[in-house]
Amino acid sequence: MADYREMWKDLGMDLETHDLLCEVLPVAFTDVYLSQKNRPEGMGYYDFVVSEIHGVRPAELIEAQKNGKKVFGSFCIFVPDEVIFAADAIATGLCGGSQFWVPGGEKVLPTNTCPLIKASVGARLDRTCPFFRIADMYIGETTCDGKKKAWEILKEDVPMYVMDLPQMKRRKDYKAWAEEITALKDKVEEFTGNKVDAEKLAASIKLINDKRRALQRLSNFRKNKNIPISGKDVLLISQIAFYDDPTRFTQMTNALCDELDKRVEEGISVFPKGTKRILLAGTPLAIPNWKLHNIVETTGGAVVCEEMCTGTRYFENLVEEGRDTFEGQVEALAERYMNINCACFTPNEARIDDIKRLVKEYDIDGVIDVNLKFCNLYDTEGFLVERALKEAGIPVLGIETDYTDADAQQLRTRIGAFIEMLG
Amino acid sequence: MADYREMWKDLGMDLETHDLLCEVLPVAFTDVYLSQKNRPEGMGYYDFVVSEIHGVRPAELIEAQKNGKKVFGSFCIFVPDEVIFAADAIATGLCGGSQFWVPGGEKVLPTNTCPLIKASVGARLDRTCPFFRIADMYIGETTCDGKKKAWEILKEDVPMYVMDLPQMKRRKDYKAWAEEITALKDKVEEFTGNKVDAEKLAASIKLINDKRRALQRLSNFRKNKNIPISGKDVLLISQIAFYDDPTRFTQMTNALCDELDKRVEEGISVFPKGTKRILLAGTPLAIPNWKLHNIVETTGGAVVCEEMCTGTRYFENLVEEGRDTFEGQVEALAERYMNINCACFTPNEARIDDIKRLVKEYDIDGVIDVNLKFCNLYDTEGFLVERALKEAGIPVLGIETDYTDADAQQLRTRIGAFIEMLG
Repeated sequence: MADYREMWKDLGMDLETHDLLCEVLPVAFTDVYLSQKNRPEGMGYYDFVVSEIHGVRPAELIEAQKNGKKVFGSFCIFVPDEVIFAADAIATGLCGGSQFWVPGGEKVLPTNTCPLIKASVGARLDRTCPFFRIADMYIGETTCDGKKKAWEILKEDVPMYVMDLPQMKRRKDYKAWAEEITALKDKVEEFTGNKVDAEKLAASIKLINDKRRALQRLSNFRKNKNIPISGKDVLLISQIAFYDDPTRFTQMTNALCDELDKRVEEGISVFPKGTKRILLAGTPLAIPNWKLHNIVETTGGAVVCEEMCTGTRYFENLVEEGRDTFEGQVEALAERYMNINCACFTPNEARIDDIKRLVKEYDIDGVIDVNLKFCNLYDTEGFLVERALKEAGIPVLGIETDYTDADAQQLRTRIGAFIEMLG
Repeated sequence: MADYREMWKDLGMDLETHDLLCEVLPVAFTDVYLSQKNRPEGMGYYDFVVSEIHGVRPAELIEAQKNGKKVFGSFCIFVPDEVIFAADAIATGLCGGSQFWVPGGEKVLPTNTCPLIKASVGARLDRTCPFFRIADMYIGETTCDGKKKAWEILKEDVPMYVMDLPQMKRRKDYKAWAEEITALKDKVEEFTGNKVDAEKLAASIKLINDKRRALQRLSNFRKNKNIPISGKDVLLISQIAFYDDPTRFTQMTNALCDELDKRVEEGISVFPKGTKRILLAGTPLAIPNWKLHNIVETTGGAVVCEEMCTGTRYFENLVEEGRDTFEGQVEALAERYMNINCACFTPNEARIDDIKRLVKEYDIDGVIDVNLKFCNLYDTEGFLVERALKEAGIPVLGIETDYTDADAQQLRTRIGAFIEMLG
């Protein structure tokens, strides 16, 4: 790994504590990822990004800042990156996927908060994540109780802008979200000093759609009987999508897909015949949370689809291109984002339809409904989801977990038994 | 108690299970309430209402239904009763304050849900609360994750209408709430077949304001050095305010206040000199949750104010009267309701100002910041509240509790020590 200590020091990070993270991450990555056999060569790029996760991309962001660009950090797939890139600024994800950050969050947040939020807040307050140090402004949203209130703590430290996501999906709520997108545009313009016009927004809509198209293309490979790439690897790519430069990410992902095209032609699979095809549904898996994929794929299963924010909810729908007015574009953005079926909406029945559709499209043998501990939204909705799947004759296993390894063996037993039962 | 078994049977209630509740409630009430000395005579009315809590008011509601009236059940102080009464219908509270109902809720909801929501859902699904059986329609709101998702389970059983409360307090959010109130009006008109006009709405605004004025008058007595009524008794009155006929409730509460006027003149206090004056801040205390008041008032304290939904948040602000158009009235309603400082908003700094103001107005010795277990909103906000109070030199104790008695002794020890420390 290149030496980024000077950069981290300049960012005001806690180097000593951060060193501990730098020690454990490569070990976990080697165990989970590099131990896989027959990986596509194109994974080399993502492996490199992870190996320098707190170095290479942060260095680029700092360089961009030196050239006058602003960096906006966000926590949720409802924040429309298109608006930020249209103001010649950069959007980057800020979620926290490691137990390493959780105790820092628990200093100020209730223990009964989901690990994702605790890790995010801990990463910021403990100064052990460069992305949190670099971002000039955070953009929050009102998707859940925990995040809504966490913004009030984070904003004491960093400029924070909050978008109010409607909690329902009536036509007027689509309009309200369009207004929020326009308000974000105003804020971003003010903060960057750059104007957003229809031409720039059209370009950034295409930029982000291209990323989605690449992820869709990647995802489609998993529909094959011969699965040319592991679920773990696709998860890693999805996680990196939140941080990486979108143009480069799209290029590299399409290059990987070219390689996978050949694998499909040659009938190459990274899984033995008869491996059970698993869909994970539920709460997101932020980097470096690879726990469930690792368990599934070492107990006779292959994860071939994630109905998650780090999955189909992130890339499935495109923003309509070709609208030629700013108002029309904002309408198209609102339409696309409001069609994400997140458990934060009431009701959210379309999510059950999504899961049933994905089960068919990906020829799923069994669904694992995943809840990050203390996410009340997905936990409650899980009751309805699991009931609906059972009624439809689709095998489903509901699990709740967090970022610790304390339950790994128990999960391995339960998931192993579930997969065996599918046989 | 009169015999209401036939009525409960007709309501489709589970009589056997309900009998168990009927056995425990009077015992708890006798222990907590009737054991008090020197209670105002005017408490007789509220004692009667509680002694027949599942009988007398339900019988009135059923009688009203026979005469063509509709009954709307709600769970939150953001639902504007004014609109319902203006349509010649009846609004009633539906919250659940007893552990008795919690296991029923846990059959379908995550254990990590607050007891208030679990009890409400359990009371409905187990068919052990007549109010839940009587209501023709429930009115929910989007104030928290747990409730938002609970509506999806409740609505499988009962007509359910949900109001989308904005999650922030910008001017446009006030307007959005006014639109929600108008949409509720449309729904209530359609469901009842009765038109709401400015004249009817003016009358119901006055009706509900009168209730608030009576509660304000009652609350003001607690500002006296000689406290003429216990906190427990005022809590009971606040709880009954959610269920009772508003006209009668206002009359009876004003009659009680007339009695308290005399007590003040005569310098009567129900507490010994030197009793510490406690403000409870935080999550609501639904009937029959009297646990904290009972502990405080048997360990050397007097609860003289509740900054809660069952307290100042319910009655402090009036709806502006005298607007002569429907639009103007809705604007006044939106203004009044949006000014409630609930932790569901981000940010919610005005709540801290409220608490500091109440500390002065009620000459408070110490604040107990109360969180119902698994309420992430008030729990997270509690961190900010308690820090602000400490910075202002106001003694504060943060506690988290649920409806069980398991922690009663521990709370007694902690609260006792806190009150002693105030000395």
